[in-house]
Amino acid sequence: MAETATVRPLPADEVTAWDLEADVVVIGFGIAGVCAAIEARRAGADVLVLERTGGWGGAAAMSGGFIYLGGGTALQRTLGFEDTAENMEKFLTAALGPGVDEAKIHDYCQGSVEHFDWLVAQGVPFKEEFWGEPGYEPPGDQGLMYSGGENAAPFNAIADPAPRGHLARTRDKKLGEKGGGYMLMEPLAHQAEELGVRHEYDVRLRRLVVEDSGRVAGVVATRYGKPLHVRAARGVVLATGSFAYNHEMVERFAPRIHGRPTATVEEHDGIGIRVAQALGAELAHMDATEVALVADPQVVVRGILVNGRGQRFVTEDTYAGRMGQAVLLDQENQAYLIIDEAALEAAFESQSSLAFLRTAPTWVAETVAELESEMKLPERALQSTIELYNHHAAQGEDPFLGKKREWVKPIGTPLGAYDLRGYTGGFTLGGLRTDLDSRVLHVSGEPIPGLYAAGRVTSGICAGGYASGCSLGDGSFYGRRAGVSAAEGK
Amino acid sequence: MAETATVRPLPADEVTAWDLEADVVVIGFGIAGVCAAIEARRAGADVLVLERTGGWGGAAAMSGGFIYLGGGTALQRTLGFEDTAENMEKFLTAALGPGVDEAKIHDYCQGSVEHFDWLVAQGVPFKEEFWGEPGYEPPGDQGLMYSGGENAAPFNAIADPAPRGHLARTRDKKLGEKGGGYMLMEPLAHQAEELGVRHEYDVRLRRLVVEDSGRVAGVVATRYGKPLHVRAARGVVLATGSFAYNHEMVERFAPRIHGRPTATVEEHDGIGIRVAQALGAELAHMDATEVALVADPQVVVRGILVNGRGQRFVTEDTYAGRMGQAVLLDQENQAYLIIDEAALEAAFESQSSLAFLRTAPTWVAETVAELESEMKLPERALQSTIELYNHHAAQGEDPFLGKKREWVKPIGTPLGAYDLRGYTGGFTLGGLRTDLDSRVLHVSGEPIPGLYAAGRVTSGICAGGYASGCSLGDGSFYGRRAGVSAAEGK
Repeated sequence: MAETATVRPLPADEVTAWDLEADVVVIGFGIAGVCAAIEARRAGADVLVLERTGGWGGAAAMSGGFIYLGGGTALQRTLGFEDTAENMEKFLTAALGPGVDEAKIHDYCQGSVEHFDWLVAQGVPFKEEFWGEPGYEPPGDQGLMYSGGENAAPFNAIADPAPRGHLARTRDKKLGEKGGGYMLMEPLAHQAEELGVRHEYDVRLRRLVVEDSGRVAGVVATRYGKPLHVRAARGVVLATGSFAYNHEMVERFAPRIHGRPTATVEEHDGIGIRVAQALGAELAHMDATEVALVADPQVVVRGILVNGRGQRFVTEDTYAGRMGQAVLLDQENQAYLIIDEAALEAAFESQSSLAFLRTAPTWVAETVAELESEMKLPERALQSTIELYNHHAAQGEDPFLGKKREWVKPIGTPLGAYDLRGYTGGFTLGGLRTDLDSRVLHVSGEPIPGLYAAGRVTSGICAGGYASGCSLGDGSFYGRRAGVSAAEGK
Repeated sequence: MAETATVRPLPADEVTAWDLEADVVVIGFGIAGVCAAIEARRAGADVLVLERTGGWGGAAAMSGGFIYLGGGTALQRTLGFEDTAENMEKFLTAALGPGVDEAKIHDYCQGSVEHFDWLVAQGVPFKEEFWGEPGYEPPGDQGLMYSGGENAAPFNAIADPAPRGHLARTRDKKLGEKGGGYMLMEPLAHQAEELGVRHEYDVRLRRLVVEDSGRVAGVVATRYGKPLHVRAARGVVLATGSFAYNHEMVERFAPRIHGRPTATVEEHDGIGIRVAQALGAELAHMDATEVALVADPQVVVRGILVNGRGQRFVTEDTYAGRMGQAVLLDQENQAYLIIDEAALEAAFESQSSLAFLRTAPTWVAETVAELESEMKLPERALQSTIELYNHHAAQGEDPFLGKKREWVKPIGTPLGAYDLRGYTGGFTLGGLRTDLDSRVLHVSGEPIPGLYAAGRVTSGICAGGYASGCSLGDGSFYGRRAGVSAAEGK
């Protein structure tokens, strides 16, 4: 019986008996895993999914459910938005860098329209309605939204803005109930079952089983602590998610996000990365993180966001995940939102999926000087910033950060400030380096035979930046590829 | 004859004859390599150094020659500076993070006094003179200097400031002649030769040779393209430097420094990292980079540094490498230095190792408004910043960034600005994860038998931040450890 406390590969000749066998063994039943399973099965493989928890879903089913797609999807066209693969590629190259995998971004953009159709064909429902207001998610079951700052500076000058956040139609839209991610996963899991994909739950990946030739032949897993040897005749697909909950790895590779995992699940312990590293797999962008600013974008857009010194640093009408990255990575996790009473009232009348975050400001004051003093900012810090902002805002302009005219209004009084210091959280984006066929690449540059991966266990289309929907997007897209490649023994 | 185009390990049983043999084979004759060689030899091993170029030196010999040491070294004490290992540890933990290897920092600080004495015992000369002015290096052959912002905010409130940049006495101090790094390397290389360390030049590492057991038994190298099989009876020490010149690795792990390698050498191609990764070695902090701002600190300290929006963001009296990181990583590589005529004259009268960088400002003007307009900054951007700065500077205070009183003076007129956009460059700090015995750690957490590493091929004491002298510091310190460990077969 193999030791299960190490991530080192087990030589295949040490396996005396296989407990389970399949052509393709998929590890993890989240978005990447289910897509891999479906496509591997369709390609004629006998498919077995091993899932650590008691059912399908993964982080995907708990998520908001955005899938980042474009280039002129059926939904974009129906709702009157023009987009091309080239235009999408321009945006993603600028927004997800620096250091993006150019070939992967190109490939992803070229395949995006087909991928949307495929999701629809699997039964994923999208409501033909656009939501055009600021927010992380639509307040209802609208199917399309800007989700990466496409229509804000600096990107609106780099590529023609088009909304690309595609959302599976939600069943209920109350906190804690079935959201878009669940509604994405449910038809896919159903589809996999219909196709005859087998699954085993409560099974945790421990090690890979490797032949003398270097080919991955299966895995060692455990169920309730008991080892299971699982043979994969054609290939193993790693779809085990990120390392956001592996505290040591986070400290070693992405220490700024340490202690603040958000929009992730505890199962994301990096095991898929570790077992592949033990075979010499290459990594990429291990420091990259999605970072959310925990604030209602409908409120933020109507105020000004300042750092610990009272200076503006990011346009308030962009994707809030971009603000989150700016706060955590560039501003030492220090931020305040300054907003006047009239703007706050307007914000509170708007619709938002995050209306539950709407509380009273931390400080309120009759004058900017008084607010500045309440916040214990150095004298004239905030006054100076607001005078400068208002000087240009009087003309409807923001020459510093390019906030759109519709949102630029002088800050009046009375006014208040929200203390957003430390209001960030997120998940890791780095992982295994894979090619366009979702083959895991060895540090030598060659694929590791029999090993495939997709989703947040890999470094996907995001190198540094993020847009909502990129994880379910590249997870599903390259999950499919992984399934096909594994079934065909590519 | 083994293939040399791959970084995959070569099974030892495929080696039919060894071309060279030694107990300990050290790869790279820079600072880590020479220290490893000396200590391995002293521990009784027959030592062979393989060096890719035509002689000893590496990046170290080309460098300024700082070694970051403290805790009360003989030089610190002679020059009247108090320091303790605990105080040094507090500073390094704050300045080199987030995510520092706490055990390594502690160990390094505890061993620092002894390490200085060891360097002196090897014949490394240090002049007993302190240089207290701003600068990357002393203008002459002074032996001690602040080299990490110890005496600037925020660190001067975290730990008692002590200078810890120890510099080997230079022979000549003209650009392109023998600087501190050379004077550090020369006695060490001489010492190694005296002890009977053998060396082979023009030999490039290609692959590791590994026994069935997983133990590293030697290396495959090439000399003028011809393979050499080199047996290491006790261990291989990787001392091959950083990956700053491996463009693919930089793009994959540290894309912000891409295209701007500085203070590094072309031999730093990441080969040591790659051959170890191929064995399943763990990495750490692959995104971390040293970043220099290419400007004379004597000028910078007398002005204010502003970003692309005209805002201050880092105290101008801190370590210039900290400014460089702030500019490149947090300010999109955008910076201007604003300085008035009187301050510039004072700066030009000061002594500096970078006096050759002293040129006229990019823009000069009679008023701030005029300068702002020349610089094409938005109206009132610079005026607002200077009014705010001067408001507090009139009291000798900088409540925003904590610049020390001695450097805080209101900006007057006439004045000028230097365009420092893109004036950054640096090298990578991430690499192999090693333990305190300089053993290369497998992703499983266990050491890889027979494999040791030190210097910039490893992730050393720097996780994110940097101080001048940390690379020669941990390279020499853990180079020694690697030598001892390899000789003893630890």
